[in-house]
Amino acid sequence: MSGHACGPAAERLLFTPAPNPVADPVWSAMRAAADLPSGGRELDALLRRLHDALAEVTGAPRHLVLTQTGTATAAIESAVRATTRPGETVAVVSNGQFGDRIVRVVTALGRELRAVHVPWGVPTETALDAVGRASRGAALVAAVHHETSTGVRNDARAVSAAVRDADPRALVLLDAVSSAGELEVELDAWGVDIAVCGSSKGLGSLPGASFCLAGSRALDRVVADGGSYATSWARLVEAATAATADVFLTPSIPVLAGVEAHLTAVVRRGHARHLAQRAQAHAVLHEAAALPPLFPGDAPPGPVAVYDALDARHLQARLAGTGLHVGRGQGPHKARAVRLSWFGHAAPCADELRRRLRAVATAGAPS
Amino acid sequence: MSGHACGPAAERLLFTPAPNPVADPVWSAMRAAADLPSGGRELDALLRRLHDALAEVTGAPRHLVLTQTGTATAAIESAVRATTRPGETVAVVSNGQFGDRIVRVVTALGRELRAVHVPWGVPTETALDAVGRASRGAALVAAVHHETSTGVRNDARAVSAAVRDADPRALVLLDAVSSAGELEVELDAWGVDIAVCGSSKGLGSLPGASFCLAGSRALDRVVADGGSYATSWARLVEAATAATADVFLTPSIPVLAGVEAHLTAVVRRGHARHLAQRAQAHAVLHEAAALPPLFPGDAPPGPVAVYDALDARHLQARLAGTGLHVGRGQGPHKARAVRLSWFGHAAPCADELRRRLRAVATAGAPS
Repeated sequence: MSGHACGPAAERLLFTPAPNPVADPVWSAMRAAADLPSGGRELDALLRRLHDALAEVTGAPRHLVLTQTGTATAAIESAVRATTRPGETVAVVSNGQFGDRIVRVVTALGRELRAVHVPWGVPTETALDAVGRASRGAALVAAVHHETSTGVRNDARAVSAAVRDADPRALVLLDAVSSAGELEVELDAWGVDIAVCGSSKGLGSLPGASFCLAGSRALDRVVADGGSYATSWARLVEAATAATADVFLTPSIPVLAGVEAHLTAVVRRGHARHLAQRAQAHAVLHEAAALPPLFPGDAPPGPVAVYDALDARHLQARLAGTGLHVGRGQGPHKARAVRLSWFGHAAPCADELRRRLRAVATAGAPS
Repeated sequence: MSGHACGPAAERLLFTPAPNPVADPVWSAMRAAADLPSGGRELDALLRRLHDALAEVTGAPRHLVLTQTGTATAAIESAVRATTRPGETVAVVSNGQFGDRIVRVVTALGRELRAVHVPWGVPTETALDAVGRASRGAALVAAVHHETSTGVRNDARAVSAAVRDADPRALVLLDAVSSAGELEVELDAWGVDIAVCGSSKGLGSLPGASFCLAGSRALDRVVADGGSYATSWARLVEAATAATADVFLTPSIPVLAGVEAHLTAVVRRGHARHLAQRAQAHAVLHEAAALPPLFPGDAPPGPVAVYDALDARHLQARLAGTGLHVGRGQGPHKARAVRLSWFGHAAPCADELRRRLRAVATAGAPS
């Protein structure tokens, strides 16, 4: 990914949680894969490299990678459908917009919901007792790793351990959409049965594909079609375990090739080194923005930082011409917060970033 | 799309039903849209142009365009979920693999299935009496326009009229995945309540997004969440009717920008002229291939032609080095048919096509 340059000042630079900028080498890989037949040795090799790299950056060498065309939210929905039955209990630990989204998924699917609501901005590991209580008798417990509505990184290991301690039969589902590729993720070591991520953000490609990483305990629970043909895990598992690459429904092979190019480069450079670079990039973002966080805390920064008392529309208007784009707040913080994120690119141009972010700091104070 | 060239002989050329080659101007549009913020005037304008062009090429100025991230099959599933309730009757008219796929969707959703099976290769309009009988009391009747497993173009107008005659309350759903942008589609005039298409094939972009075009009768039936959060039509309708572009879950804006670029160019050039060019391209395919059709008939050629007694694996091996890729048969024809298709590009290089297809004709006879 070293081929990515921040570019001239006039160029648009997104610091929004979505979409994320896509690096030049990823575009090249997508383009090269556009005429790849949807079967055969080349696709086999590409999917194998993609799955290996994804397993490496999520610490999941034994999880099966189920690739779907669709959003990560649809993938979460498919996981709940596949591993639980209507009427069974699903607990959801939420401290933000994306936790609440899982609550809505579980409700729409007619599962018995037990929501553990932790205040926005407070990490979920502060509520381990409540997590344990909600886990008892639950078929599945879902939690978010990096909550992009507030910038809070939850301690997924601690939450997973609390579930396991309370009820070893409950499956653990982790929303790793904003953490995979950006933060340390160790599914095996943390006892996470299912993790969901998407093709964009930390995986570096365009949106359009999503991945469920499924451990053996989750695979043992798979319902035949789960009430869906298009997102049936039974069919996805069949495709994923076929001797040669089998694709279930038409995938966006170029989008997958983009993920493969990004992740293979990450693994080649060294995953630990990559994470250190990402942390440095985010430290630069935080430092250069020089703004108080919405929720003070000493949690290490994740890829998204949230700034209080800043109206994103107002700020965006003042930033017109700088090429900088920042994200609006979500949910209750829609009108009074700015979200500053940087996903995907592995080689930050710190000076250019500082230069541009000075504009944020200058323009930031509401007039 | 006039910027597309067939390229040198060594270049890979796909004549497969999926994936389809993507033209240079479409790639440029995708790339230009990669840093488009997921809200704001630019996205507004892009989606408005996309929806207008899609409505024009499908004859549906009053249908609402619901854009989803996912496969067309998932979009069909969302339409069935949204407009029918579990236990209600859904009739499916099938004469091939893609009709059978809708049968599986309806079964997975627990709707009461009435399947009208027409033999593979026989157009569905030969079974209008059976279609009428199956329609009576059905909440929804689904049919495929161009059946890519056999190359048969069904008379969607006649099928839709038969449904309407038999039961005016039944909604008509048309799988237009392989016909939108390639064949005449007149949803309003034909009385089609819901049509589904995807971002690739005749819409010219990468796979990853899908569209449901919904008429007022369909919108009147929408169930609140339909048993899905991620593909809830109520939420999609809310997003589609918002004053400014509202996106429900993260869309692949570049994929949508690719569709917009392709379709806007089609509309600018003139839709009728575009369809005439597509018919010419397919006539060249048929003529140059010089092979007998799997199912003889006098239906005008659609974008996919199927050739009998040809093993695609065998043929592909003999074509190695020519850069030509053809598709394998499907279902019962997996081992003994070749599917030859050409989607998306509007300016065929007839000579290059003939030159390459002579290789198909020469290599085609099983040894």
